[in-house]
Amino acid sequence: MSADPVAITRDLLRCPSVTPAEGGALAFLEKTLKAADFTVHRMTFSEPGTDDVENFYARIGTEAPNLVFAGHTDVVPPGDETAWRHAPFSGEIDKGELYGRGAVDMKGGIGCAVAAVLDHLAANGGKPKKGSISFLITGDEESIAVNGTPKLLTWVAEHGETFDHCILGEPSNQDELGDTIKIGRRGSLNGTLIVHGKQGHVAYPQRADNPVRGLVKLVDAIQNEPLDAGNANFQPSNLEFTSIDVGNKTVNLIPGEARARFNIRFNDCHTQESLRTLIEGRAAKASGGKINFSFKWEPSNANVFVTQPGPFTELVATAVADVTGRKPELSTTGGTSDARFITNYCPVVEFGLVGQTMHAVDERVPLADLRALTTIYRKIIDRYFA
Amino acid sequence: MSADPVAITRDLLRCPSVTPAEGGALAFLEKTLKAADFTVHRMTFSEPGTDDVENFYARIGTEAPNLVFAGHTDVVPPGDETAWRHAPFSGEIDKGELYGRGAVDMKGGIGCAVAAVLDHLAANGGKPKKGSISFLITGDEESIAVNGTPKLLTWVAEHGETFDHCILGEPSNQDELGDTIKIGRRGSLNGTLIVHGKQGHVAYPQRADNPVRGLVKLVDAIQNEPLDAGNANFQPSNLEFTSIDVGNKTVNLIPGEARARFNIRFNDCHTQESLRTLIEGRAAKASGGKINFSFKWEPSNANVFVTQPGPFTELVATAVADVTGRKPELSTTGGTSDARFITNYCPVVEFGLVGQTMHAVDERVPLADLRALTTIYRKIIDRYFA
Ligand SMILES: [Zn+2]
Ligand SMILES: [Zn+2]
Repeated sequence: MSADPVAITRDLLRCPSVTPAEGGALAFLEKTLKAADFTVHRMTFSEPGTDDVENFYARIGTEAPNLVFAGHTDVVPPGDETAWRHAPFSGEIDKGELYGRGAVDMKGGIGCAVAAVLDHLAANGGKPKKGSISFLITGDEESIAVNGTPKLLTWVAEHGETFDHCILGEPSNQDELGDTIKIGRRGSLNGTLIVHGKQGHVAYPQRADNPVRGLVKLVDAIQNEPLDAGNANFQPSNLEFTSIDVGNKTVNLIPGEARARFNIRFNDCHTQESLRTLIEGRAAKASGGKINFSFKWEPSNANVFVTQPGPFTELVATAVADVTGRKPELSTTGGTSDARFITNYCPVVEFGLVGQTMHAVDERVPLADLRALTTIYRKIIDRYFA
Repeated sequence: MSADPVAITRDLLRCPSVTPAEGGALAFLEKTLKAADFTVHRMTFSEPGTDDVENFYARIGTEAPNLVFAGHTDVVPPGDETAWRHAPFSGEIDKGELYGRGAVDMKGGIGCAVAAVLDHLAANGGKPKKGSISFLITGDEESIAVNGTPKLLTWVAEHGETFDHCILGEPSNQDELGDTIKIGRRGSLNGTLIVHGKQGHVAYPQRADNPVRGLVKLVDAIQNEPLDAGNANFQPSNLEFTSIDVGNKTVNLIPGEARARFNIRFNDCHTQESLRTLIEGRAAKASGGKINFSFKWEPSNANVFVTQPGPFTELVATAVADVTGRKPELSTTGGTSDARFITNYCPVVEFGLVGQTMHAVDERVPLADLRALTTIYRKIIDRYFA
């Protein structure tokens, strides 16, 4: 009898694990995986000023290669519970869909991975066919994410664990199961451009130096040319000025300072360093030495990464195509994810459910998707160890 | 024996007439001018939501021409009184200077005008040599100025009074008595440029429309060319963007709207209407139909005006030169004044004391300046009626 991804997901959905609460979700995984002979580690990470959060690592087998399924059991709050068709932590099934906060993001992905792994073990006498299989699960992904994946990876490395390949089960598909595998993400960098002028009365502009004049020139110069043309794996890097704030309420006053905030989403044509050089250079050129400006760059751990297409991505894509009949796009679009940390330890791809209802009221997943994703993961495991 | 401008100014300085308080200043003028046979009118103007404020009109003579001395007895608050060398309402004299809030702006100017008029009357049997002399004094110039000169002028007109020429005794001089006569002022117009975009996540800019992009283009286009070249009486009109405010605190969010506020100081090459047409036209051209923008124009009663140089300005300038030995500049620079309202009734020039200590701690006036300004006013009166 094969493991049931619907039942496992349903049990997870009934755990109210809104970040930072464990809610019983990791305890359930511990019980389930221990029963299948996994070695399970549960650890709590702390940081002054933040809530303690539980994390989880489980492994079966001691040899390489170690294939890792990564994910998070924490969920965003359900919002107005009365707006839900079914209570957000009840795990109701209605017309072939399983309802609950986390159904697609990403308790469903974890449920499918657990079911696929249990099936693989059952078919191989209770052990991986070769090597090892691990679960790397955090409880701190949806909120400030201070006590989650980065600390979990450090812990795992300090305990001598090594990974060979990782599948992160975030909802990667846009419209239909099988349409998208995420093989990387753009980096993200925030900065502020500050133009320093001299305050004064509007009736005497020659005694003042209006920083808005300079700011507009520099903003225009910075955003007028593309940052790059993109490449085979990435769309072009993009800069957006998200706010300009002078905050001068006095109609007769030329302000002393003007600020513009911006965010850059960048591909692997760039590093944070190369971007700072490029942006500051554009400003310097546009100022012609006549505008007094400075930049404030926020520290960022959101670097660009990509798992270059090759045998591993090909293995995953073929499994997806065999089950769904769709040729998945190898995409690097969208916001950041924990894959940007995992990439420092091993090649990682993201493939999970369809993201459409994530973070929304009535988050839900078709039972057919849970079964199909389980079959995909099973094929990946079997072929990986073949 | 001639009237003493120092004594009259000192009596006025001892009245604590911080707007909207009358403080005894108008009562003192009433007593002084009634004693010289003036007909005195005191009227209180009101407006919902504002303080009632007293105003003042006095006239001697019934014939034309009617020469008017205009001004205000209200003063700005003294600020930190302990920072003053002499208490701000004590009227102390120290090393040849008279101290007090309003010494130059503009109780000193009123004191000199009263002294000069009393001297002229005394020299002519208690009457103007010809025509009439009037005082048009408001108590509401320094604050929101709702119950001041405009209502006073309406009242005077409704009572059948007409003016021929006016001298407004505001501190017109920059560095030394006699350096500047103000013959006009630029107008002032405030507006807001609003660019309407579409909010969205910075990771998906193609689904949003960043209004900052368009705003910067339009601001640059609007401020990049001069509004005009100025003319014989006026420096060029000038536009300053005084604030840009998006107010987006979220680093991942492209905002939905961006606003830029601006102020225009304009000369008589323009009207408010021609400016609105020019600015909106520049924005329309720069947008190329691709930026969704609108303008909000604030109502303004600060129109440009100028008293064209001619016999009256010449009479005033000659009197100044005769007494001070300086050839005064006929200027239109600086902020607005009540002269912009008086100009609708008769030609007006501004000539008074030196403005350097106005609105500051230790506001004060040299006794020599009070005496010289009295002599200048006396020459103007005598020659005007000659
Ligand atoms: Zn997630
Ligand atoms: Zn004044």
